[in-house]
Amino acid sequence: MHTVFYVSDGTAITAEVFGHAVLSQFPLPFEQVTVPFVGDEGKAQAIKDKINDSYRQSGKQPLVFHTIVDSTLRNIITSSEAKCYDFLNTFVAPIEQQLGVKADPRINRTHGMENRKHYDTRIDAVNYALENDDGMTTKAYDEADIILVGVSRCGKTPTSLYLALQFGIRVANYPFIDQDMQQMELPKALKANRHKLFGLTIDPNRLQEIRQRRMANSGYSAAAQCRYELGQVERLFRMEAIPFIDTTYHSVEEISVKILERTGIPRRIY
Amino acid sequence: MHTVFYVSDGTAITAEVFGHAVLSQFPLPFEQVTVPFVGDEGKAQAIKDKINDSYRQSGKQPLVFHTIVDSTLRNIITSSEAKCYDFLNTFVAPIEQQLGVKADPRINRTHGMENRKHYDTRIDAVNYALENDDGMTTKAYDEADIILVGVSRCGKTPTSLYLALQFGIRVANYPFIDQDMQQMELPKALKANRHKLFGLTIDPNRLQEIRQRRMANSGYSAAAQCRYELGQVERLFRMEAIPFIDTTYHSVEEISVKILERTGIPRRIY
Repeated sequence: MHTVFYVSDGTAITAEVFGHAVLSQFPLPFEQVTVPFVGDEGKAQAIKDKINDSYRQSGKQPLVFHTIVDSTLRNIITSSEAKCYDFLNTFVAPIEQQLGVKADPRINRTHGMENRKHYDTRIDAVNYALENDDGMTTKAYDEADIILVGVSRCGKTPTSLYLALQFGIRVANYPFIDQDMQQMELPKALKANRHKLFGLTIDPNRLQEIRQRRMANSGYSAAAQCRYELGQVERLFRMEAIPFIDTTYHSVEEISVKILERTGIPRRIY
Repeated sequence: MHTVFYVSDGTAITAEVFGHAVLSQFPLPFEQVTVPFVGDEGKAQAIKDKINDSYRQSGKQPLVFHTIVDSTLRNIITSSEAKCYDFLNTFVAPIEQQLGVKADPRINRTHGMENRKHYDTRIDAVNYALENDDGMTTKAYDEADIILVGVSRCGKTPTSLYLALQFGIRVANYPFIDQDMQQMELPKALKANRHKLFGLTIDPNRLQEIRQRRMANSGYSAAAQCRYELGQVERLFRMEAIPFIDTTYHSVEEISVKILERTGIPRRIY
């Protein structure tokens, strides 16, 4: 198996995301090693040795995806026997040419604390999601960007948190419970914020599987209960013209981006 | 101002991360537009028109960062008048050559639901973080990968959630309160899991600022209280040999990756 090293003088998250995207097109397994915060020559040299050792041991030339700003440290890594893919610098030169502006590597702060406002927006959104999770309170819905609705365990909470962390968006979520569904009516707090509602639904078998893992052999996780709740909730979404998506075959990222696309709500942080 | 378009047939998250990393080296502001799920020729053509309109209106040639797998759709986008940067394909050919294996673009599922196990690991970690947030319960610490400790509002919760969502790691967090700090002793539940403890601390002025935004002019947000709590907690960290880091000047990503680096805990998902 080939080993892939993600090497950076920062968090290496950019190198990881980049590497995943490229390697996901190859029908091979890879051994993955992340090496963040390579900030001095000693550490760079140690990583170089580790890369070369990996080559000797496996007999397969390692791949190195790196985003190292300092050229001395970068040169140490690229002098290893791996094949090195320089994700940043490959694009910096043509962009410099297009813009007629020199890049200043020192200002590179991709996953650093770019600015206080950005940071506060994000943390406020996380706090908002937590305080308004699972219908805990409905008093702060005026401040919501989006209110996710759906049955218990259809994916509302992870989606709320992802939208908060990644995009700084304030997402409340409200679980439809038996009573709401029997009456087929929106609770009052939701009616007042109808334009913010977005529904999630899920395949009944998948829902049952998820609920079984939480609470095996209960009424809550019974197949009939899952089917009943989802049938009712989808009827309610249609009656009330609430946009909704099926989460069954989508990752949290896909669900989040689809919601932004459908609602047109802009990212608060980029 | 130049406009940057992030265009993808998926979530466009890879294109965004990539674009941010490269553009963060340029001392210029950019107008950013994300266009996800470009899945058919009609949509691709509409985006092409939008890109060209943007050029005409601003007089500045737009930048397009794209990760489009389908070559027909990709050709529509790259026939726009923008400068297009093809992040995936730039690297695919040399990697094919290194590996001696052809890429199969159809299997590209960077931010899709790669597999059920991956998905469950992540959602379980998010649930774990929520259920074990803020010392709510200490009964499930046996299942924790890490237990973050520190005073209220030093960054424990966002870090726990980020580690769960990004890396599938199970993180509990426990706030040191007055009583713990007066006695300068670890609560029993923490003692039993001492090897999992990781401390966060923060600059007293920054802590005060954060607490003021939550609860202005309270004892909780008084400068003296913040200084007292942080002084005590850092003494406790040292006495008990708990590794800790200062969160003041670091993003959630940086804190998370530093914790993984210091503890050596492997990512559960990549």
